[in-house]
Amino acid sequence: MTVDVACDAESLRPLFEPNAVALVGASPDFTRYGGRVLHFLNGFGFAGPIWPVNPKYSEIGGVECYPTLDALPGSPDHVGIAVAAERVVGVLDECGRLGVKAVTVFTAGFGETGRTEGKDLQDRLVAAARAHGIRLLGPNCNGLINWRNRLSMGASATVLEQAGRPGSIGIVSQSGGLGQVNVMWRALRAGLGVGYQASCGNEADIDVVDVAEFMVEDPEISVVLMAVEGIRDGAKLRRVAEKATRVGKAILMLKLGRSEGGSKAAALHTGSITGADDVHDAALAQMGILRVDDAQHLVHAAMLFQQRRPLTAEGLASISVSGGCLALLADSANRFGLCFPEYSPHTLDALTAIIPDFIAVANPTDLSVEVLGKKNGLARVLDAVSQDPRVGILMPSITMTPQHDLNIYHVAAANCPKPAALIWSGGCTDAPYNETDHMLDGVPVYRDVDSGLRAAGFLVRHRRFLDSHARAMPAQRPPDINPRRARDIVEAASTALGERLSKTVLAVYGLPVTQELLATSADEAVAHFYKIGTPVALKVESADVVHKTDVGGLRLGLSNAREVFRAYQDICDCMAGLPSKPGLDGILVQEMVGPGTELILGCTTDPTYGPVMAIGLGGIFAEFMGKPILRMPPLSVDDARYLMETDPLRKILRGVRGVAGVDLDALADIVVRFSWLVSDLADLVSEIDVNPIIVSSHSMTIVDAFMMRSDG
Amino acid sequence: MTVDVACDAESLRPLFEPNAVALVGASPDFTRYGGRVLHFLNGFGFAGPIWPVNPKYSEIGGVECYPTLDALPGSPDHVGIAVAAERVVGVLDECGRLGVKAVTVFTAGFGETGRTEGKDLQDRLVAAARAHGIRLLGPNCNGLINWRNRLSMGASATVLEQAGRPGSIGIVSQSGGLGQVNVMWRALRAGLGVGYQASCGNEADIDVVDVAEFMVEDPEISVVLMAVEGIRDGAKLRRVAEKATRVGKAILMLKLGRSEGGSKAAALHTGSITGADDVHDAALAQMGILRVDDAQHLVHAAMLFQQRRPLTAEGLASISVSGGCLALLADSANRFGLCFPEYSPHTLDALTAIIPDFIAVANPTDLSVEVLGKKNGLARVLDAVSQDPRVGILMPSITMTPQHDLNIYHVAAANCPKPAALIWSGGCTDAPYNETDHMLDGVPVYRDVDSGLRAAGFLVRHRRFLDSHARAMPAQRPPDINPRRARDIVEAASTALGERLSKTVLAVYGLPVTQELLATSADEAVAHFYKIGTPVALKVESADVVHKTDVGGLRLGLSNAREVFRAYQDICDCMAGLPSKPGLDGILVQEMVGPGTELILGCTTDPTYGPVMAIGLGGIFAEFMGKPILRMPPLSVDDARYLMETDPLRKILRGVRGVAGVDLDALADIVVRFSWLVSDLADLVSEIDVNPIIVSSHSMTIVDAFMMRSDG
Repeated sequence: MTVDVACDAESLRPLFEPNAVALVGASPDFTRYGGRVLHFLNGFGFAGPIWPVNPKYSEIGGVECYPTLDALPGSPDHVGIAVAAERVVGVLDECGRLGVKAVTVFTAGFGETGRTEGKDLQDRLVAAARAHGIRLLGPNCNGLINWRNRLSMGASATVLEQAGRPGSIGIVSQSGGLGQVNVMWRALRAGLGVGYQASCGNEADIDVVDVAEFMVEDPEISVVLMAVEGIRDGAKLRRVAEKATRVGKAILMLKLGRSEGGSKAAALHTGSITGADDVHDAALAQMGILRVDDAQHLVHAAMLFQQRRPLTAEGLASISVSGGCLALLADSANRFGLCFPEYSPHTLDALTAIIPDFIAVANPTDLSVEVLGKKNGLARVLDAVSQDPRVGILMPSITMTPQHDLNIYHVAAANCPKPAALIWSGGCTDAPYNETDHMLDGVPVYRDVDSGLRAAGFLVRHRRFLDSHARAMPAQRPPDINPRRARDIVEAASTALGERLSKTVLAVYGLPVTQELLATSADEAVAHFYKIGTPVALKVESADVVHKTDVGGLRLGLSNAREVFRAYQDICDCMAGLPSKPGLDGILVQEMVGPGTELILGCTTDPTYGPVMAIGLGGIFAEFMGKPILRMPPLSVDDARYLMETDPLRKILRGVRGVAGVDLDALADIVVRFSWLVSDLADLVSEIDVNPIIVSSHSMTIVDAFMMRSDG
Repeated sequence: MTVDVACDAESLRPLFEPNAVALVGASPDFTRYGGRVLHFLNGFGFAGPIWPVNPKYSEIGGVECYPTLDALPGSPDHVGIAVAAERVVGVLDECGRLGVKAVTVFTAGFGETGRTEGKDLQDRLVAAARAHGIRLLGPNCNGLINWRNRLSMGASATVLEQAGRPGSIGIVSQSGGLGQVNVMWRALRAGLGVGYQASCGNEADIDVVDVAEFMVEDPEISVVLMAVEGIRDGAKLRRVAEKATRVGKAILMLKLGRSEGGSKAAALHTGSITGADDVHDAALAQMGILRVDDAQHLVHAAMLFQQRRPLTAEGLASISVSGGCLALLADSANRFGLCFPEYSPHTLDALTAIIPDFIAVANPTDLSVEVLGKKNGLARVLDAVSQDPRVGILMPSITMTPQHDLNIYHVAAANCPKPAALIWSGGCTDAPYNETDHMLDGVPVYRDVDSGLRAAGFLVRHRRFLDSHARAMPAQRPPDINPRRARDIVEAASTALGERLSKTVLAVYGLPVTQELLATSADEAVAHFYKIGTPVALKVESADVVHKTDVGGLRLGLSNAREVFRAYQDICDCMAGLPSKPGLDGILVQEMVGPGTELILGCTTDPTYGPVMAIGLGGIFAEFMGKPILRMPPLSVDDARYLMETDPLRKILRGVRGVAGVDLDALADIVVRFSWLVSDLADLVSEIDVNPIIVSSHSMTIVDAFMMRSDG
């Protein structure tokens, strides 16, 4: 769905930064939606004019109320609409006449009802917005909040949070409650400053990705938190993620719908079933979007990301006086993909001079009570540790502490040029109830090892993504591939492309298919056998036969002329005996491929992300493969190599029990070529199934393949 | 290490419930350990006499201070000791003379130093305690707190928590900080009442399991939280866990040391490596102890367990006005092994009458704003849902709410006979900052879906364990097994039992080993071949040959007399050609076992839990097995059957790609027999390695085996 006006991120500016706002359906009654929106709009502190519109009132709370939009003293950029569903389109037309640039439609009763009249009404709404060049948030949404200009165009009591101040966090969701309460309000309560928050409701025009893009482009936003129930347009998300990557900005996403995975499973033709949610997992990871499991994880991560301190090393450093806490830190690191590196010699020297000699200096560091008793002991330890070049993140762990020591921890973390936070599970011994899980002047305080280390884990993962992205060569189509030729073959074919035709297409992409020749007589089959020069298989070639084995259309391992001759006749006899009397194009004489590991390459078309390729193990290992590995094509050589380093592929490809490993460079080339095939033919082909490709230390050959056209 | 006095749980009573206490090393100086202990001891409210002991002072804070224990006006049950390490044994002797029953030794400088003098001092300490019949907590510990009688024998400022009140939570750890701060103090701050807390330090006498037992036996303790860095005695833990199971009480454990897994790996002889931590995982699960990942998980779980409400069904019910929160709940359930069952028809009828008809009634339940507007709407929904027999746990999810509605949620959860809690991510719209993550009059309030659902998950897992335990038949040794005969064979053997002798032992346990006969001439080998009646293998039998294949001592797949005859001679020639000139007992003629799935059975001796058996996949599947499945033997038939239902065993045993599955009852019998072998010979044998046993739809045969005596 596109609007005729520019629908770039900049087109959302009038929504968030209007010259003036009007609210159609304004009410003095707080129990009504229009009453609540007006209440918060007036109370939050927006500096521009706020014009209530409702013919029932001449004034609301001492402020003039206008009967219609036409009666306004000016033209507001942004109009909120909280009138009955059937009246909304009319209001939008008024907005168009007035030159309004953006509307927020709170009203429900549109597409979300699932009923025809609701959907029709929503279509009319979008048509009207498009006709007038108006960007539209909603309908059925909870509106937005801009903490910079104190614009609250929504009914959320979360703006009551007095400590709330503008900051660098951007938050977007479809749902109101989730985004405004579980994320925004909790972020505010954690001492974070929020820039923008928006709830997109039905996303009839503006969707969560549009809002994310607006936030990514805003230099004052440090991190974008998305709490979403779905993504309408995976390609758009990819573009926005790429923008974020270019500026090094993190997008974290609570993507709901994991539980749908079971019911709305996407079946690959290979027989491997993969949940739609696995595609999200794979696609988000490939885009560098960090997926989280609970809303609070977004907030905890944002506490660290918004420091905007460069991560110069992956290693974590922590110190504690509690042996138990040290053990807990060491234990937990692995769960979040983190490590506590050994300190560099310089740091060890510095620490050895401060820490009593009966304690082994290590990381995480047993501080010992003795250090706390020494003059500047704690500060010197913190200083030494935070300067270590192997340390990228500083996270001291504190239990009960006097206020004085807490300040030392805090100053060290505040002044550290590296990402730094406190894990403070206890309180102050000399100032009860002083404990916090808030930001303390720019320093995140986590109450638990779990929350702190999880946040650090996201920071490290994001850095790794940015680094690998910076290093990565872009995906490039091998120059010998002629996509036009492949398309011509597919376009000329019937809906289901059989083995031979599918292999022809694969061969155009330089993929290694079996040698095979079509024979129309037993003598010709024998001649082909000599030409191929290895044991062969005979396979019936008929558009009418789908499952060759079931009807006796397949003979394997024929190693001399007599066997080939007899097999040809046997197959012909079997076909002739079939009640369906299939038409016969001939019989394929195909090289037998030696032993090796069976891999499966496939693709599926995901409703969100489009073509998705899959790679998995076939044969007896298929049972253990778990889910196939999914990727959005095309892949670069690096991507393909990385893929093969993923378990359980890695284990098999490197050689099992004395069997030599496969040539990973050659296999990477195959995977890259296949990824281009999937990518280039995405519009034409809905299914590609290479099953199996047999790989060994000395050869890689596609034995069977199948394709289905999109119009099939 | 045992003491001569009774060391049952009851012997810890004087420690927790003394008539009077003395503190040796008492001080008026708060910066000294003895000063802090006295400060909290005096301030916490213990009703019995508190006698400071220190020759330096005649009084401390206006209370008489005694020069020695002998000078006390009475005999205290419990004496705290905070004097220099070298003086502690002398104080213990004084305690003995006075009839003291328990001591807490805070002083460090003992076994934990890792130095000989420290360890010796600790040995002397234990010897003195034993000689005097005194139970000893510590040394190097942070002491204990009894919230019932307000006894604080420790230096922890956590007793400052004014809201702290006695309750049903028991907490034990080695570390002070972890148990007292990360668990106890956080539990208090969450509104939980604690019964006892103890930090066991070096565990020279009393260990964490002893304290856990004391708590399990106390009827007023509802749940035991352990935050431990190690377990000294796995068998004792098992006994205590069984006691807990009998009374239906949960033990939750934060067991640290996961990260050690890598370095201190326990190698099974099979070549499968398993981390020591995996043994903990397996053993704790088998005992029904719930293992958690972070200290806060203990607290969150305790909030729900201490309700002591019966779990009558596994299903969860939740309601919310936020669609996003509903999606989050549904998504998260699976992660914690939970489900939201469909409501029963009666409940659906009741809900349909209250919830507007444009909303589909489901679980979790979309409450809709309309219900909140109806008179008693919310209360009626909560009532209907909580009465549903399919619902075992009630957890409404609240975002922003007026105080009035919060009360309705709270009353419903408080009066529900089922476990019930609130997930409240937001605040009050009409009473800012009223939100909480505390207990509200017996109702847990969780701030996040994660923490609430994780707690519910533990409740369900515990119930499942209790139920399966109640149903389970006890492990019973099959009556045909004669352990004495097996022991005789092992005792008569050399340190390493070769294939033939190992198989003899296995056969005593009714385990199916290959048919095999020893031949000392080529003619005899041929005769044996005819007797066995299938293709055979020839294997050199020599105590001097370990790796038969390497020296040409193995010939496979011999299917006629000529092959057998020649193979016999070949092996003899190979042996004769070896420079080591191995002694030859003969050559084994052994049936060849047909194709099937290779399994491995093994055992290892864990320093904590003793004999641990392992079962895994061999052959080409071994790469995919991941870690072998571990169990403490012996197993019941049910246990063995359950084991085979575990992936990836299940996948293979049920038949892969057209291959018929194996007879699971027969295999379970083998696993049970093997478990008894491991259990019965635990003191004699350190390693048993059955690799492989080949299983198929029609046979199960042990092809090779090896045992190592404990003195090896």
